[in-house]
Amino acid sequence: MGKIWAMIFSIVVSLSAFLLAGWLYQWVKKQDSTNEKIHKISELIRSGANTFLRKEYIILAKFAGVIALLMFVFLPEPIWKTTGIVDVFENNLTIMFAYIFGTVFSAMAGKIGIFVATIANKKTAEAAQKGIRPSFLSGFRGGAVMGMAVVGASLLGVSLVFLITNNATMLLGFSFGASSLALFAKAGGGIYTKTADISADLVGKVELGIPEDDPRNPAVIADNVGDNVGDVAGMGADLFDSHVASMAAALVMASAIDVVAGNSINVTMVFVYAAIGLLASVVGVAAARMGKSDDPTKALNTSTYLTTGIFAVFTALATWIFSFEWRIYGAAMVGLLVGVIVGITTDYFTNDTKSPVRKVAKASQSGPALTIISGVSYGFLSVLPAMVGIAVSAFVAYKLTAPLGDGYALFGISMAAVGMLSIVGMIISNDAYGPIVDNARGLAEMGGLGDEVIQITDTLDSAGNTVKAVTKGFAISAAGLTVISLLGAFISEVNVAALSLGKPLIAGFDIMDPAVFFGLLIGASVPAVFSALLMLGVNRNAERMVAEIHRQFDEIPGLKEGKEGVMPESDKCIDIATDGALKELIPAGLFAIVITILVGIVGGVYAIGGFLAGNIVSGLLLALFMSNSGGLWDNGKKYIEAGNLGGKGSDAHKAAVVGDTVGDPFKDTAGPSINTQITVVSLIASLLSVIFLTFSLF
Amino acid sequence: MGKIWAMIFSIVVSLSAFLLAGWLYQWVKKQDSTNEKIHKISELIRSGANTFLRKEYIILAKFAGVIALLMFVFLPEPIWKTTGIVDVFENNLTIMFAYIFGTVFSAMAGKIGIFVATIANKKTAEAAQKGIRPSFLSGFRGGAVMGMAVVGASLLGVSLVFLITNNATMLLGFSFGASSLALFAKAGGGIYTKTADISADLVGKVELGIPEDDPRNPAVIADNVGDNVGDVAGMGADLFDSHVASMAAALVMASAIDVVAGNSINVTMVFVYAAIGLLASVVGVAAARMGKSDDPTKALNTSTYLTTGIFAVFTALATWIFSFEWRIYGAAMVGLLVGVIVGITTDYFTNDTKSPVRKVAKASQSGPALTIISGVSYGFLSVLPAMVGIAVSAFVAYKLTAPLGDGYALFGISMAAVGMLSIVGMIISNDAYGPIVDNARGLAEMGGLGDEVIQITDTLDSAGNTVKAVTKGFAISAAGLTVISLLGAFISEVNVAALSLGKPLIAGFDIMDPAVFFGLLIGASVPAVFSALLMLGVNRNAERMVAEIHRQFDEIPGLKEGKEGVMPESDKCIDIATDGALKELIPAGLFAIVITILVGIVGGVYAIGGFLAGNIVSGLLLALFMSNSGGLWDNGKKYIEAGNLGGKGSDAHKAAVVGDTVGDPFKDTAGPSINTQITVVSLIASLLSVIFLTFSLF
Repeated sequence: MGKIWAMIFSIVVSLSAFLLAGWLYQWVKKQDSTNEKIHKISELIRSGANTFLRKEYIILAKFAGVIALLMFVFLPEPIWKTTGIVDVFENNLTIMFAYIFGTVFSAMAGKIGIFVATIANKKTAEAAQKGIRPSFLSGFRGGAVMGMAVVGASLLGVSLVFLITNNATMLLGFSFGASSLALFAKAGGGIYTKTADISADLVGKVELGIPEDDPRNPAVIADNVGDNVGDVAGMGADLFDSHVASMAAALVMASAIDVVAGNSINVTMVFVYAAIGLLASVVGVAAARMGKSDDPTKALNTSTYLTTGIFAVFTALATWIFSFEWRIYGAAMVGLLVGVIVGITTDYFTNDTKSPVRKVAKASQSGPALTIISGVSYGFLSVLPAMVGIAVSAFVAYKLTAPLGDGYALFGISMAAVGMLSIVGMIISNDAYGPIVDNARGLAEMGGLGDEVIQITDTLDSAGNTVKAVTKGFAISAAGLTVISLLGAFISEVNVAALSLGKPLIAGFDIMDPAVFFGLLIGASVPAVFSALLMLGVNRNAERMVAEIHRQFDEIPGLKEGKEGVMPESDKCIDIATDGALKELIPAGLFAIVITILVGIVGGVYAIGGFLAGNIVSGLLLALFMSNSGGLWDNGKKYIEAGNLGGKGSDAHKAAVVGDTVGDPFKDTAGPSINTQITVVSLIASLLSVIFLTFSLF
Repeated sequence: MGKIWAMIFSIVVSLSAFLLAGWLYQWVKKQDSTNEKIHKISELIRSGANTFLRKEYIILAKFAGVIALLMFVFLPEPIWKTTGIVDVFENNLTIMFAYIFGTVFSAMAGKIGIFVATIANKKTAEAAQKGIRPSFLSGFRGGAVMGMAVVGASLLGVSLVFLITNNATMLLGFSFGASSLALFAKAGGGIYTKTADISADLVGKVELGIPEDDPRNPAVIADNVGDNVGDVAGMGADLFDSHVASMAAALVMASAIDVVAGNSINVTMVFVYAAIGLLASVVGVAAARMGKSDDPTKALNTSTYLTTGIFAVFTALATWIFSFEWRIYGAAMVGLLVGVIVGITTDYFTNDTKSPVRKVAKASQSGPALTIISGVSYGFLSVLPAMVGIAVSAFVAYKLTAPLGDGYALFGISMAAVGMLSIVGMIISNDAYGPIVDNARGLAEMGGLGDEVIQITDTLDSAGNTVKAVTKGFAISAAGLTVISLLGAFISEVNVAALSLGKPLIAGFDIMDPAVFFGLLIGASVPAVFSALLMLGVNRNAERMVAEIHRQFDEIPGLKEGKEGVMPESDKCIDIATDGALKELIPAGLFAIVITILVGIVGGVYAIGGFLAGNIVSGLLLALFMSNSGGLWDNGKKYIEAGNLGGKGSDAHKAAVVGDTVGDPFKDTAGPSINTQITVVSLIASLLSVIFLTFSLF
């Protein structure tokens, strides 16, 4: 099979994913929805989420416009240079369009996901009146639309860009577009969701002692909106970004090998594998339902394993039929395996049936300080298996594929990333299920559907939490492997540029080179500063919203007492969350971009090589730490709320609530945003490689 | 001047430091001490500290015995190899003795420091009755004994070992001895001090609401003992370790250059600079007193700046007289400057007159969760200036000295570390002042010396806290620069071994080499896991001690009510803290050692190179984060206790206490122990280089 056919196959598979998404949407839409009150609240959530998306996309459009212009002028080579081996003008124009394309595709997928998720939430709530099975299916299928749309758009976009330009560098432009959007969607959405969550809890639970999702609380709707914009749109954009980046990196290296060999077998392989991954997810999603057991977690896991199995078998078949290299198949399988292992270890550290959560819950009996200390400790411990897993998979993939010849070793690592991300359609579906059932729980409470229904949604919600923790570990590892291969793509790009400029080629980045070490140290501090800026943004934004909630309780007569017909002004809270989130993400985003450029200008490409490595390493460390400790505190609190160690209202519970609140921005704002930060920085470095080669101070 | 004379000069200066220490001790001893009650309590602290040291040294002796034996058999080359270019038997015997020597010298300095500190505390308390000036002088001079003893012993030891063996590799053995002791002293002392502190606070302040240092609390004496074993002996051993390591690394590289050039100018330079540094500290310490102002912080800073100035001027003079390279002088000055800058930025993030502490205190009004989130955020932010400072100083030192020829660039970095650590005698003196006045405050309270006296000791104590935060930033940066130069020493060692084994030489560690990247990722996770194990150790140990305190309050009649003559069984708490601390540090220490060896065996020297780089980078990051956020929370609490934001007993205060308790193991156990962990790992790697070259799997 030639690469053209492989791309056409990929496009067909993408379209089939869109078809499935359309069918799922129709199915969800057909479900009953009769409760007027729920419908009304759901509309509030829907319009809140749309407001956020609209404002986000407007700001993004301005940002992307500026970046696109800069790209046109400077990238891959400054436009006034006409001496290159390629037509600079045409090249710059193409990469600019690829970039815009990347933002638009990702935005489109996010929009579709939110559109369906905000319908599926009410359907899921009402379906819970009929039982757990139909309710599960509504939630899952609503989420699966996002999964299919994201991966479909990603594969379609990559295939189209490559089919049209036949130039892997252009994919980096597309990928950078996806990253730009992910930065806004993930970091902005993360600030949004935690602003609302913390504010709602601080005033509602802590000050007034009213239940979660109490309709009197003006921040409750914003909190539910936050679930959608943070966990549906944000996570979707994040994984869209990773999926595109993994393919882009693999294709950059595959092209380089294929050009030398005069064939297209490796490029073909990347497309075939990615398409099979999506196909496997399509089957997994379509097949998902609760079997005889009443356990939604099991249902989600079964579909995931099914997808994994299909991918492993069919890629083997394809490798056999099309005579791809078995060693590269091995690399992809190693990536897949490590993804599963990281998922399992993440589960160990965040599952309330396991020792870490139990011990943290127990420590909470001695007050919040010990909740925090022990949670931080287990969070630190939890990084080891994932880091070792990523290290080993990169090492094994490299060793497996290095014997194939020049360039294969780094290509092998990138194929491990492709392997790990192959089942991402399934992963996103599982993940988007979480906020839908979380919303459904809120709607059931606010709509007064009764305790039995709330209990069903609680069960579904709890499965969502477990799956979410696993997904995050998976997303972070995938980002880790992807950026390792982006480092390879960076070297490829630098050397293409060095060749055309007549500069010496770069073989690697020696740690003992002071420029590399300089970059390493600074790169390592970036994720820490980036997350600090985001978390401080959440704090500032939450202060504003808490003040607004206080104002409403003080000024709206009858609100605190829950007088019939008195409604809070939820839209004001939504506005605060939206405007604040988009404002507060700017310092963090700018910091990451500016410091990359500064290091490159000061220290040149060697400093940037070190910078990227430091950034990856400390980014993985902090992202894993924050996501896992956050998940652990969340489940520690839930464990106590389930009646253990004194249950709700006990001192242990109060301490656990503190842990959970600390964990909120850890796991939902800073931790997962670091992924995006790493990718953005890596792509900027690759795209600016010519600039750094030409203009650096040292 | 030849190197022999330089070493003799160093030995003479070391002896002058010991003389000054002796004089200071006599001076402290002569101060009044008449209060019987204070004397009795002080004796309890003294004997508690001695118990800990004794037990620590017994365990250490066993550990060091095993290590010494292993070194004899395996290091630098396996003893059964007789084909090397040197006499293996004699070499191994020498390095073994150098190792033992290193542990003994450090232990001796620690013992002297504790001996004087536990006398100076009561003298300081009683002197406070006469005013702040004499009290300050007692505290400072008591601490200065430690400063002089540590740096005197370090310089004396290094000079003697080099004078006797004339072999820089043997210094790595000496340095490893110092590191072994530091691991026990710093990590063990850190667990001890925080076990006692947290337990005393949890039961005393939180449960019973009795004041700090209340004599009824059985953990109070242990808490005061902890200040001595953690902050005097532990910090002393840590800086002894860094000072020795910086000299060892510089001498390894200086020797390599000098051998090729056939002279000894660079070795001479290292000794002359180190000796001038100690001399400057001697002058600074002797001159220190409170001038006309009543500000103890100013007095401490003035002496530090005096020392810095003397060092800068006299090394310039020496460089001129002995025709050392001015570029290397420049590198040393860059190190010194960066040390000062890091000190100042650390001060910004932990000083209660600056914005971060104020903002965290303000956030505490909304509950402990926001105290933690904002403290973590500022802690993350605080890493940037120090990381950039270290990166820039290494980069500048390298660029300055690289033109001098082969080997000079890494030597330049090591001289930046020597420059930064030159004033360490003064730094330790300032640092040991802290726990002495802290103890004095406790003694004044327990001895009933009245509010005015307590207030004086409070003022002295607060200066101690500020200085301590600065010292920690300094110690961490110094460790950072030192280990970068240890990385250079590692390459030197590997290549000496490679040469004798006929293996290819190593030019550097390329990040794109999968073995290097493999090491990088795993190395980066080690400090996180190491600190997690220590903090969990503190938790477990604190649980045991809290149980014991509860038992005493329940079983000893009249204790809770404070009946005249009823004393708690403080010794039981001391035993728990001691045994627990030494037990709990074992998993952390073993983990760091074993994983280093594993990575080396699996991935060989390249993996170890990456491992060390990852370890340094993430170690610096986490150490800075934890030390600074801990200091910030501590001072945030103090700021509120000074009457701001509602003062003691307010909700903000309660939240700030949670922050302070979380910060305790951050800043006094895990954060500073990471220094030692990094050095230990770097030295093991250097010492085992032959093994990794010969036996690695890949």
